[in-house]
Amino acid sequence: MHRIGQTKFDVEEGERIDDLVRNNLQIIQKPGSFCFSIDAVLLANFATVKKGDKIVDLGTGSGVIPLLLSTRQQVSHITGLDIQQAVVKRAQRSVAGNQLQDIITILEGDLKQASATLGAGKFDLVTSNPPYLPGGRGKINPNDEIAVARHEICCCLEDVIRESSKLLNSHGRFALVHRPERLADIMVLMRKYSLEPKRMQMVYPTAGKKPNIVLIEAVKGAMADLNVIPPLFVYDEKGHYTKELLDVYYPGR
Amino acid sequence: MHRIGQTKFDVEEGERIDDLVRNNLQIIQKPGSFCFSIDAVLLANFATVKKGDKIVDLGTGSGVIPLLLSTRQQVSHITGLDIQQAVVKRAQRSVAGNQLQDIITILEGDLKQASATLGAGKFDLVTSNPPYLPGGRGKINPNDEIAVARHEICCCLEDVIRESSKLLNSHGRFALVHRPERLADIMVLMRKYSLEPKRMQMVYPTAGKKPNIVLIEAVKGAMADLNVIPPLFVYDEKGHYTKELLDVYYPGR
Repeated sequence: MHRIGQTKFDVEEGERIDDLVRNNLQIIQKPGSFCFSIDAVLLANFATVKKGDKIVDLGTGSGVIPLLLSTRQQVSHITGLDIQQAVVKRAQRSVAGNQLQDIITILEGDLKQASATLGAGKFDLVTSNPPYLPGGRGKINPNDEIAVARHEICCCLEDVIRESSKLLNSHGRFALVHRPERLADIMVLMRKYSLEPKRMQMVYPTAGKKPNIVLIEAVKGAMADLNVIPPLFVYDEKGHYTKELLDVYYPGR
Repeated sequence: MHRIGQTKFDVEEGERIDDLVRNNLQIIQKPGSFCFSIDAVLLANFATVKKGDKIVDLGTGSGVIPLLLSTRQQVSHITGLDIQQAVVKRAQRSVAGNQLQDIITILEGDLKQASATLGAGKFDLVTSNPPYLPGGRGKINPNDEIAVARHEICCCLEDVIRESSKLLNSHGRFALVHRPERLADIMVLMRKYSLEPKRMQMVYPTAGKKPNIVLIEAVKGAMADLNVIPPLFVYDEKGHYTKELLDVYYPGR
């Protein structure tokens, strides 16, 4: 993502605008606070998106996932929910700058009450790039925006999975990006809340390394049968981005 | 595995002897019945084996896993259990031919009662290359040996995981090879029986294909934290076995 100059975005001090390299989309980011990572871009590409979908993105942060999903299909509507006011306002300014207010709504709210707030059983797809680190583990960043995005401070994995299941209609999809270390937790909790893991991809930095990202899509009420798709490698043996990664990051390049 | 000539093995009609390419081990196989596959060799290599281990191999078939495990460490004892009499007798002849009766015992028995038969909480490691296909799915082979080895006819995944947990002592290890399609079932059942998935490897035919084998090791009563290790590729882009695969199949070549 590279910085560009003149824009119609309402940018505040300390913020910058990045290009999302598709559909002329741009996004406001605040260096020093939490910026979106490759994980969110991979998830937005991995999720199954269908025409007319009503979508919720839990813990939307910068709003990057709703913005990217809006380019995948002619969806009905995308709601991005986040608990941090400053983050929500920044994401709202990104949506406005892209003139996508008709398709994307960013709301401030607690994902632990998402289904009560947004309506149970009303959505076709829920996406989430939640905090990865269990509460109390890992070094806590003194910057709140980063800490809340990284650590299970305001919500835990079970909250995300429970609310996703409640938000979805029958056979609705839940697409999650997380760390492979948590895979057993993820699968056990998905089953607990009737979200059957149906498609999974391991993302490896290179072919000889451990995976550091797992993408997983569950379908509410589906039969058990997991389709593990071919692996994604971020770098080739020369340290360059692979073609597959570039296809995700720079589609139509 | 190639066929060799003169042996000290008690071979019956229709059987052949294959070389296991380590420690001068050989094994009796019966072409047309179920012969061991790459899966068993990968599992015997993947499992964590410690000096002095007391080991059980559930659904041992040809006895290939006990034979291979006997080369990994100076283990205390390995019991191979199988429900099919003809298979058991063949495996016993393989053990005798290798003069490993002091280390390996092959027993005829139902793995659904394994802990009652062999003793609960007495083992350090349980291995299993069980039937992969749920009962009633897939084409049933008219040859019983193959059908019982492939389909969940005599036991299901839950039987294997429940009995493995019962057989193991506290922090005992359970190493399983299975199909990625069953991963959610595997993880949910492991958790149900206090076997925490701790190490996992995906095996892909080539880097661009879906994985067709998953190796997973759980530890009884351990904390959640899954170490997904680097992937194993069977073939390189030219269709030749990879170095990693050859290291497993032909160690010290």
